[in-house]
Amino acid sequence: MDIKKTHDIGALGPSMKGQKVVVGGWVEDLRELGKLTFLTLRDVTGVSQIVVAGPENLQQVKDLTRQSVVLITGAVQESKARDFAYEIKAEKVEILSRAVHPLPIDPLGRLESGIDNRLNARALDLRNQKTASIFKIRHNVLLCIRKVLTEHGFLEVNTPKIIGSASEGGANLFSLKYFDKQAYLAQSPQLYKEQLTLGLERIFEISSFYRAEKSHTVRHLTEFTSVDIEAAFMDYTDVMEILEQLVVSVFEHVEKDMYPGTKELGDRNQKTHDSF
Amino acid sequence: MDIKKTHDIGALGPSMKGQKVVVGGWVEDLRELGKLTFLTLRDVTGVSQIVVAGPENLQQVKDLTRQSVVLITGAVQESKARDFAYEIKAEKVEILSRAVHPLPIDPLGRLESGIDNRLNARALDLRNQKTASIFKIRHNVLLCIRKVLTEHGFLEVNTPKIIGSASEGGANLFSLKYFDKQAYLAQSPQLYKEQLTLGLERIFEISSFYRAEKSHTVRHLTEFTSVDIEAAFMDYTDVMEILEQLVVSVFEHVEKDMYPGTKELGDRNQKTHDSF
Repeated sequence: MDIKKTHDIGALGPSMKGQKVVVGGWVEDLRELGKLTFLTLRDVTGVSQIVVAGPENLQQVKDLTRQSVVLITGAVQESKARDFAYEIKAEKVEILSRAVHPLPIDPLGRLESGIDNRLNARALDLRNQKTASIFKIRHNVLLCIRKVLTEHGFLEVNTPKIIGSASEGGANLFSLKYFDKQAYLAQSPQLYKEQLTLGLERIFEISSFYRAEKSHTVRHLTEFTSVDIEAAFMDYTDVMEILEQLVVSVFEHVEKDMYPGTKELGDRNQKTHDSF
Repeated sequence: MDIKKTHDIGALGPSMKGQKVVVGGWVEDLRELGKLTFLTLRDVTGVSQIVVAGPENLQQVKDLTRQSVVLITGAVQESKARDFAYEIKAEKVEILSRAVHPLPIDPLGRLESGIDNRLNARALDLRNQKTASIFKIRHNVLLCIRKVLTEHGFLEVNTPKIIGSASEGGANLFSLKYFDKQAYLAQSPQLYKEQLTLGLERIFEISSFYRAEKSHTVRHLTEFTSVDIEAAFMDYTDVMEILEQLVVSVFEHVEKDMYPGTKELGDRNQKTHDSF
């Protein structure tokens, strides 16, 4: 592409009136109103209204389908719309990818779909803001865990997942052939953690681990992300205190302090367009 | 243990003269000098000199072996030693674990050991400051990569490692039995990444991946930590720019700005005791 995004939508606001921007995303909605067409354009950081006018641009968006991917070059201007604090008057509309209709699921979440349909159309499902929020929050939870543990002097390590024998009793292991040998997928970093604390004192690992147990609930997975800490010179009360602080910090961070680019900016825009 | 560490050694300094502290670590060196015994005590954050006096305390350290783990209660005082900016006058010496000699390797690194001996005595090898530094730097490199990518609006994701079919051609996969099915260990997050960008735009994953290829060099591992990014609305020049900034930031961060508790504080203490 010759033209490139200059801004995430979340970085725009009414204070930028008159500024020329290039934004990109997918079309959530289209409304023809006389000699204007209004697009609702979403990217991962937010949602904006695009005003399209003029014969050439109107021709471009005439048969445009919802969820198509477009690049818009235009200028920020005040909006008369109740739902938007500003809008972009399009100078150029470039269609990067046209969505084929009917869509397999409704990414706005107005029509609910079963989990199988959602997973089969996962790319569209990720445009559902409820689904996207799970990924955004998860990112921030993990980031905050790493930050807090680092501040407590914990070092992150990566232990082997292909191991020669079980680390702990009790759990069933997946086995695999490692060239001529029998090997297993690690069910925890336990043995490695204990050795590591003898020289590094406080360590943690956030990684996938594996247990070959048939799932009876949605909370027992064969492959899961484990947050695991181990510390020398601490007893269980010290560890509980750290874990308590960790949980509190994660909630505070997710509520107040999500990192730039990972949350939607612009409360007013968000109000009417997020499904939760 | 009844007594607990109040400070990491790296947090102590000559400005704390008179303050009572409890520190814990392993004994790197012991020297009897008349009616005093000097211990060099190291924890993961630094190294300090401990002055032991009085019949009861001297009795405690009489047969103490190097690399034994001790808790020291004492007060910070000025040091006349050339190598230390301060020292701790021990009031109480508690031996938590006595090291059995001869040691299998020299954790100070004066005597070099082969890799097999080092791995067999890995806990001691981690007390070699060259080995420990690799873990500390690695922690900070990963932390900085996550920080920089987050600042660029990338979300961290965790894709499945147990997969039903190969993500990319070319690489040999480890196969395993997943209950009644055949499964494979992922060699990259490629297919997942591509789907994820359709709704989340910029994503990355830092995780172990697996390739069933016999290693011909120490840089080709069957299990390795992969840093992998994928982005929508970018071309290769944008990606190269981000990766270039990432590498520069990592070097700057490791050099200037390692997180508290993950580097040794107190330059003067460090000078004569680090192996590099």
